[in-house]
Amino acid sequence: MAETNFPSVNGPICPIPLVHADTIVMGHGSGGKMTNDLIRLVFQKHFNNSYLAAGNDFALTQVPAGDGRLSISTDAHIVSPLFFPGGDIGKLAVCGTVNDMSMSGAKPLYLTASFILEEGLAIADLEKVVISMQTAADEAGVTIIAGDTKVVEKGKGDGIFISTSGVGWNTSEHNIAGNMAKPGDAVLISGTLGDHGIAILAARGDLGFETNIQSDVAPLNELISDILAETPEIHVFRDPTRGGLATTLNEIALQSSIGIIVHENHIPINDTVRSACEMLGFDPLYIANEGKLIVIAPAEYQQVILETMKRHKYGQNAAVIGEVVDKHPGRVIMRTYIGTTSILDVMSGEMLPRIC
Amino acid sequence: MAETNFPSVNGPICPIPLVHADTIVMGHGSGGKMTNDLIRLVFQKHFNNSYLAAGNDFALTQVPAGDGRLSISTDAHIVSPLFFPGGDIGKLAVCGTVNDMSMSGAKPLYLTASFILEEGLAIADLEKVVISMQTAADEAGVTIIAGDTKVVEKGKGDGIFISTSGVGWNTSEHNIAGNMAKPGDAVLISGTLGDHGIAILAARGDLGFETNIQSDVAPLNELISDILAETPEIHVFRDPTRGGLATTLNEIALQSSIGIIVHENHIPINDTVRSACEMLGFDPLYIANEGKLIVIAPAEYQQVILETMKRHKYGQNAAVIGEVVDKHPGRVIMRTYIGTTSILDVMSGEMLPRIC
Repeated sequence: MAETNFPSVNGPICPIPLVHADTIVMGHGSGGKMTNDLIRLVFQKHFNNSYLAAGNDFALTQVPAGDGRLSISTDAHIVSPLFFPGGDIGKLAVCGTVNDMSMSGAKPLYLTASFILEEGLAIADLEKVVISMQTAADEAGVTIIAGDTKVVEKGKGDGIFISTSGVGWNTSEHNIAGNMAKPGDAVLISGTLGDHGIAILAARGDLGFETNIQSDVAPLNELISDILAETPEIHVFRDPTRGGLATTLNEIALQSSIGIIVHENHIPINDTVRSACEMLGFDPLYIANEGKLIVIAPAEYQQVILETMKRHKYGQNAAVIGEVVDKHPGRVIMRTYIGTTSILDVMSGEMLPRIC
Repeated sequence: MAETNFPSVNGPICPIPLVHADTIVMGHGSGGKMTNDLIRLVFQKHFNNSYLAAGNDFALTQVPAGDGRLSISTDAHIVSPLFFPGGDIGKLAVCGTVNDMSMSGAKPLYLTASFILEEGLAIADLEKVVISMQTAADEAGVTIIAGDTKVVEKGKGDGIFISTSGVGWNTSEHNIAGNMAKPGDAVLISGTLGDHGIAILAARGDLGFETNIQSDVAPLNELISDILAETPEIHVFRDPTRGGLATTLNEIALQSSIGIIVHENHIPINDTVRSACEMLGFDPLYIANEGKLIVIAPAEYQQVILETMKRHKYGQNAAVIGEVVDKHPGRVIMRTYIGTTSILDVMSGEMLPRIC
């Protein structure tokens, strides 16, 4: 990488240009001078905060005042390709973990990020991903307070893998979790299903036609805090990522020992996604989403939740899609367009590998 | 994997034998049935706690009572080979993050673990690693409260990569950190240097001779809490991992804007490690350690620290190796065996790739 792209950073170490540094080399994972250069000139340049600048093996930070619990989560991200319509692996890594820790109703506070880089990766691509992570972190209001970078030989990785972990702060006294759904609850979704998976297929050139589909990857914490501000009681928040809506609802049905009925004609699906799925033989209810929210709450609150979601940019296509019942516990049943009833099972096997 | 090795687990889902399951296949990363099977039959079987059993995207947990700060850290682990004398990637992943968060003086509480598995990995090897992680977590007194598993195609990974993050609780009112070293302080090390790196080389068959060298990989939190219990003032704890003692002392010298003098003849090095280094042209002061502790504290406490370390199984070869001075800030100077003085610089380039 030319010095014009990574201007010298003033610091205690005399700035040394990145050796061989259009691409990642094994030395960038050494823990020595080259690692230090990479950290300063790529990571700290964009993840600019006092925790990382301190240069310790740990970040020390206060817990917010008042009563609360920590909400902790982690995710590894291996999406291929690294860049896709609507996002990249960096945005995905930040949003994925922000969303997971938010699903308890917690306010996300801190992220850690560990990178496994493949020898030969363009440093310009790494920098794009790092910028994208900081942009997503800014939107979600979280700070990336600790990181690590390792390098593997060419052919032992695939460009960039990122594992993120998150720590949030939950001040609610009642639990919002997968085992809290109750008969009589309404089931809502914040928008169209399948966009992320189809955007990835498009980026791989696997669709065979042009689309304008964008991944829905987004931080959902603000949408969640808006809903919590308007609603006295929420039972479940869950984002239908790998395995899609169908698998995620099955997990909830098992955890809560309840049945779920969904109405096919209420489920929002983008026309392009629907066409692509029909052509390829996929079911959009099994395709990963990265910016959608399932909400399960007492039916009396479904209208206020729906209106709150529709006011938010990430909930404009929100819909009530089903209800929780005490029959067939552990099962999800779909009432289809044509009036029949089918079992919506857990996904088996692998439909779209390397999707997140 | 035969069912005799993974006995059926009672749970809400009818136990299904792992399909094709001597080895990892892409379906184990799908988020569907096969992922669920892998989680129940390998991960939850050994990481047996209520946080993971809850099956949510997050773990909710209390902060300890009383005043304190969170100590948060993360590390990616890519060591090759996965198994080596004295440990494996699982023990390394737990100890590495336990040690990082402990270096603030915090008590480690929680770990998250995210796995990137390569298609074709033997599930028996994965289970060995998972067992090793739980054993190390038990020793360190931490709970693995959140996890994630992804699978990449054969040739896009290397068996197992593990990223761990940790959350600890620091109740000290004064800071123990890399920028706290002061002129007059003593510099101590908890034992022999270079054992981990040479054990990895031996496991790779790169030594050309047989050795009995074992990696020193170990959780250092108990050693640290013993020292804190006996000593009113510690300035720096740091573990000399990638880059070795020399690079780590340089980082501290820069962070604290002080000079460090080390005495070569006080630095403990195992004879076999010394011989191996001489043959291979390596300097043991630049080789990674995974269970060694640098302590920097006022000289008046060096004796009590030394005695406390020597009483602990991970500190039996502890030694006072140098002192902090106000001269040559940012530099580490070594007084050699033969009485000369040399600059001990930061490692440049890569000596031993994939060491941790």
